[in-house]
Amino acid sequence: MAQRHPDPTDTPPLTVTGDALAGYLRAQATEFLRALRLHRETGGQSGSTPARARAGGGGTGVGPNGAEASVDAARALRRSARRISGSLHTFRPLVDPDWSEEMRPELAWLSGTLGLEHAYEARLERLLLALQRLSGAVVFPGRTVTPAAVGPSGPDRPTATAERSALTVGAAKAGALLERQLTLARTRAHSTALQALGSSRFHAVADKVALLASEVPLAPAAPTTALHTLAAAAEERLTDAVAALPLVTAGHPYNAEALVHGLSPDPSPHAQDGPWHQVRLLLRLHRYAHEVLHGPGTAAPVDVRLLTAGQALNRHRDASEAAAAAAQAARTPRITPATAYALGVLHADQRHEVEASRFTFQRTWQNHTATTP
Amino acid sequence: MAQRHPDPTDTPPLTVTGDALAGYLRAQATEFLRALRLHRETGGQSGSTPARARAGGGGTGVGPNGAEASVDAARALRRSARRISGSLHTFRPLVDPDWSEEMRPELAWLSGTLGLEHAYEARLERLLLALQRLSGAVVFPGRTVTPAAVGPSGPDRPTATAERSALTVGAAKAGALLERQLTLARTRAHSTALQALGSSRFHAVADKVALLASEVPLAPAAPTTALHTLAAAAEERLTDAVAALPLVTAGHPYNAEALVHGLSPDPSPHAQDGPWHQVRLLLRLHRYAHEVLHGPGTAAPVDVRLLTAGQALNRHRDASEAAAAAAQAARTPRITPATAYALGVLHADQRHEVEASRFTFQRTWQNHTATTP
Repeated sequence: MAQRHPDPTDTPPLTVTGDALAGYLRAQATEFLRALRLHRETGGQSGSTPARARAGGGGTGVGPNGAEASVDAARALRRSARRISGSLHTFRPLVDPDWSEEMRPELAWLSGTLGLEHAYEARLERLLLALQRLSGAVVFPGRTVTPAAVGPSGPDRPTATAERSALTVGAAKAGALLERQLTLARTRAHSTALQALGSSRFHAVADKVALLASEVPLAPAAPTTALHTLAAAAEERLTDAVAALPLVTAGHPYNAEALVHGLSPDPSPHAQDGPWHQVRLLLRLHRYAHEVLHGPGTAAPVDVRLLTAGQALNRHRDASEAAAAAAQAARTPRITPATAYALGVLHADQRHEVEASRFTFQRTWQNHTATTP
Repeated sequence: MAQRHPDPTDTPPLTVTGDALAGYLRAQATEFLRALRLHRETGGQSGSTPARARAGGGGTGVGPNGAEASVDAARALRRSARRISGSLHTFRPLVDPDWSEEMRPELAWLSGTLGLEHAYEARLERLLLALQRLSGAVVFPGRTVTPAAVGPSGPDRPTATAERSALTVGAAKAGALLERQLTLARTRAHSTALQALGSSRFHAVADKVALLASEVPLAPAAPTTALHTLAAAAEERLTDAVAALPLVTAGHPYNAEALVHGLSPDPSPHAQDGPWHQVRLLLRLHRYAHEVLHGPGTAAPVDVRLLTAGQALNRHRDASEAAAAAAQAARTPRITPATAYALGVLHADQRHEVEASRFTFQRTWQNHTATTP
């Protein structure tokens, strides 16, 4: 790691590493501010129709491209917020504790709030694609369910109806029900995100990130712990959490474990997903720590298999939440048996995606540890 | 192969082989007659309660053991009927064609009629166990759903109800619906089987098998085709059918292929199962031909992996039919959405069993062909 500033103290290992962290945080803060500017320029719209109508005056000539740029900007905002927050967590002893403790929950709030709309949109797309696949319809995996296509009267509606003609009545009704419920949730999430971005709470976060971009408040009483030690501790937390996963079962194809509580009266039947979600977060922290040490996008030995393992856990989370959404929709009063049946098939299908993701993770992780010295 | 009779013709290869076939057919015919005698002695009851009440005078002291022995006898009857019929098919040119063509459909009718009751019973057991597993209940894989437990007022009813208390309302109702429908189907199959066993059509078959036990009608104009050639042709039909299966897909875990028409409006959505069912039958014929050549139960090189492959295809057939039964039950008028939802989950679960069976078959077959010279 290059030392970019003269070392003002007599504890070189710490300041060298503290400086690498400071450089990383400054870079992420700059990314955050760039994304925020882009987001404001594109009108701050991530696209759902009702919200678009309401927030029409936010920018000049905001068309579909503007909405797309706005989605990208929101994603970039979340991306750097997660990295700042994650680094503050992993390298806690190196940063001013008061400042850090104040900053982290605010960043978590922000990325959580900004992420919800996209999560609902992706969940709906996943479920509608699954319904088509389960109906033997031709599926285009790259197809995005655009806001207009899922809105009540968008121009793409006839296409959506034509696609649905290949479905049974039950599958079509299940799709319509999920569209209604998840579009409503997404619209609400959009409004909440817009409100958040206009709030004084957000402006306070943005101001702090702006300060971070120029100066990182390192800990005044610098401990002797080095950056590598803290990164190693993050990796160890990951390794421990992975070791606690039921990987032997997961590595056995068709173990039928993910659906084992598919009809359980237990109100939170999928507690089994929790440890996997936890590993997903720890894997992310490990990856960010790796970025701090080696620099993002450098020729550092970024492990592709770690990325693949992370993607498997993302799919695990997405399928888990989609399965829960299908189960939730089945509890809607006054639905027809045909709708409920389709939702049951859909739920089970997504729980098998959960199982498939665990299998992929197990294989990837096994390869990873087999080749790691 | 030992030649047990003097050779009356001048075509030794045929008569040697024809004699081995004759020996096998005589042995199977003897098994058939033994099973028939046992079946009559145990009262010809395979156990469903209404049928038991009707056919009470059939034997002396027919208790639960009698019913069990009767089930075993019916299984042994089917077992030898299938072997006689299969051998007549594979070694067709060696047997009197008129006699053979008359015999085979009668044996098929018999084993089909006798097999239905057991099939419904096994299907119900599979589905009820799956419902328990999907509810996170403790499952005892060895537990048999006895007729009394599934009957409307048997002594085991309280136990069944207690087990079901761990299920959701939907799962419990789905289980009760499947019990009703499959118990009814099974009772009808039992009556049909009893009628069949008392029919003149059956007595004609039994008489023919009795004749077969003493003398096998080999073809008068014996062709020059040898037993090994015919067995090899049967194996080739199997190999060709396996080669036509989508084994690459099946060998990829979690390929999601089996459920691809889970919600299709197509009235026969699982045409994809057909080729696998066909391979199951061809594998059985191959195994019987192997028995003819090497003798059943001898130290001949019976390939354990072929048996495993056959078991995988049996499970494939069972899961396929159980999934269809769940889908069928979901079309019952006036069921609740909760019941329909549970049946949807159950259907998808069984379709994943179908997929898992294909995966097992692919792995087993791959090992088989990799080690076969």
